[in-house]
Amino acid sequence: MPTIAIDAMGGDFAPAAVVKGVAQVSMSTDILCVLVGDERQIQEVLEETPYNAEQIDVHHASEVIGMEEDPKEGIRRKPEASIVAATRLVKQGRADAVVTAGNTGAAVLACVRHFPVIPGIRKTALASVYPRQIEYEGQDHLALLLDVGATIRCEAVDLVHFALMGSAYARRISKIEAPQVALLNMGREESKGGEVMVEAHRRLRTLPGMNFVGNIEGHELATGRADVVVCEGFLGNVVLKLLEGLSEMMGDLAASAAQQNWRWKLGLAMLSGGVGRLRELTDYARYGGAPILGFEHLLIKAHGRSTELAIGNAVKVAAKAVRDQVPGEIKAAIQQVR
Amino acid sequence: MPTIAIDAMGGDFAPAAVVKGVAQVSMSTDILCVLVGDERQIQEVLEETPYNAEQIDVHHASEVIGMEEDPKEGIRRKPEASIVAATRLVKQGRADAVVTAGNTGAAVLACVRHFPVIPGIRKTALASVYPRQIEYEGQDHLALLLDVGATIRCEAVDLVHFALMGSAYARRISKIEAPQVALLNMGREESKGGEVMVEAHRRLRTLPGMNFVGNIEGHELATGRADVVVCEGFLGNVVLKLLEGLSEMMGDLAASAAQQNWRWKLGLAMLSGGVGRLRELTDYARYGGAPILGFEHLLIKAHGRSTELAIGNAVKVAAKAVRDQVPGEIKAAIQQVR
Repeated sequence: MPTIAIDAMGGDFAPAAVVKGVAQVSMSTDILCVLVGDERQIQEVLEETPYNAEQIDVHHASEVIGMEEDPKEGIRRKPEASIVAATRLVKQGRADAVVTAGNTGAAVLACVRHFPVIPGIRKTALASVYPRQIEYEGQDHLALLLDVGATIRCEAVDLVHFALMGSAYARRISKIEAPQVALLNMGREESKGGEVMVEAHRRLRTLPGMNFVGNIEGHELATGRADVVVCEGFLGNVVLKLLEGLSEMMGDLAASAAQQNWRWKLGLAMLSGGVGRLRELTDYARYGGAPILGFEHLLIKAHGRSTELAIGNAVKVAAKAVRDQVPGEIKAAIQQVR
Repeated sequence: MPTIAIDAMGGDFAPAAVVKGVAQVSMSTDILCVLVGDERQIQEVLEETPYNAEQIDVHHASEVIGMEEDPKEGIRRKPEASIVAATRLVKQGRADAVVTAGNTGAAVLACVRHFPVIPGIRKTALASVYPRQIEYEGQDHLALLLDVGATIRCEAVDLVHFALMGSAYARRISKIEAPQVALLNMGREESKGGEVMVEAHRRLRTLPGMNFVGNIEGHELATGRADVVVCEGFLGNVVLKLLEGLSEMMGDLAASAAQQNWRWKLGLAMLSGGVGRLRELTDYARYGGAPILGFEHLLIKAHGRSTELAIGNAVKVAAKAVRDQVPGEIKAAIQQVR
């Protein structure tokens, strides 16, 4: 049974939401959890929550890197930060993977510090999931987008590695046999996007075992054309935040509409099915999290606004990834192209 | 009174929507219009539409570059294409600006062929408008995003030029005295995004007369923080198409919800105010168009799916830009930084 180290202090609703989410996991699965953070605060939450004590350990960490803190500074100044301690547990073999809803940059840097990079990989990637329409039977309603900010600019070889890593992850986690992989570009034609994109396109098209569906444009992200969307971190970061921003705006609009008058309130109630579907397509906080890929170990980054449910999902995803040996799968894929 | 050359054959609903839109403009303004395209087809539409014959000329062009045609090929093979003929009229001094809803790449290349580039500018830019929330009184409900695809990668100096051009355009067209200009980046901090972004940020911050509000992230696009958003063409293109794709999906969802059962239909009717606002924030086809900037003359690119109303708006925007001497304003701004 995998052991997951959870950064109890990371996220907008930490430690309460994190500890409660883990408590629920301990009641409904066999996953072993180590809550890493301020022991007293963690215990306080545990005391008022039902949980299975046999499956939860607490590992004290005296410091916290805040959500808005500069990641480099945080990592440098706080060697006892919860996220650093959590990755250290994996390095020491005391846990198999990490889950955090905290500062993303700090999570990446903690991995850099404690996890070896898979041989052959030049750049690790931060992935994210986003909901989209479904095009074929059995397709996951979430697509994987990477990189969303671990890199800025990339070479063609890095984009190829991202494609391999994303494809391996989706194959194991979403149980899609041959995930459709696309390059996010400014046009569908293989000649589009400049040298790096053209070269990446050429390599992916001829890569054995890769189900490469070609270039994808911005408006196709919302469709089910690609299960794994590959791009450099600068672009992926802007796209992800834009999607999140629109999702939030949609929520605000619906809420303000509901407040304004009784007719709208009644209308919203009548529409609840449709609004629910819209929400589902745009609400990120409900989904568990997304992996940092390219290291020998996995870290699942849950959304900063993660609720108990989202944390629980992230822990389950992490356990599944460990059981299904995702890093090993990636290692094998990279070996093949070296 | 400005004379606007309109590509009658460009757009998904051409020539009917284009000719009808121009006919309406001729009835309600003093703008002089030259419809460029297949004379017989144009006359057929005019015959069944009320219009002011004193304000409309027809200029025959025997060829059309299709929406899906390769722009380079089209421009090379069809010297008598309507978009080429329209820009030629401006070159010859027979019109002041061009409006087209046709093939964007072909429009850019027709400008390259017939319009001189403003001295000092290395790269021209394709701008686009998008609706967003309003933050201060008098703020336009549309923001300008550039470049959205005339370039791929840019240097810092190009981004500075885009900022100057966008700022000049917004100042004249939106009547905002000091438009808020931002760089689209992967973080707010000035150290983010790599060398080019850091250098562009540094230059913009110290540029006299520039109301630079710093870096903007993806989720801030939907807010009113920036009136002019500057980025390289690769990024702008993906972002614009993503926004358009989501807008379309939203429309589809609302339509399918309305069809599914009477309760939703009733709910939608009751919500019409709120849905209307959502539509307004996401419906691009209604808005006139966006300029290609950096040339001595202006071309306004209307959306491919432009209706009569959208074409009419684009013609009015073009006339306003000519009257307000937008290219002259840009020229002066570039002179100042040279």
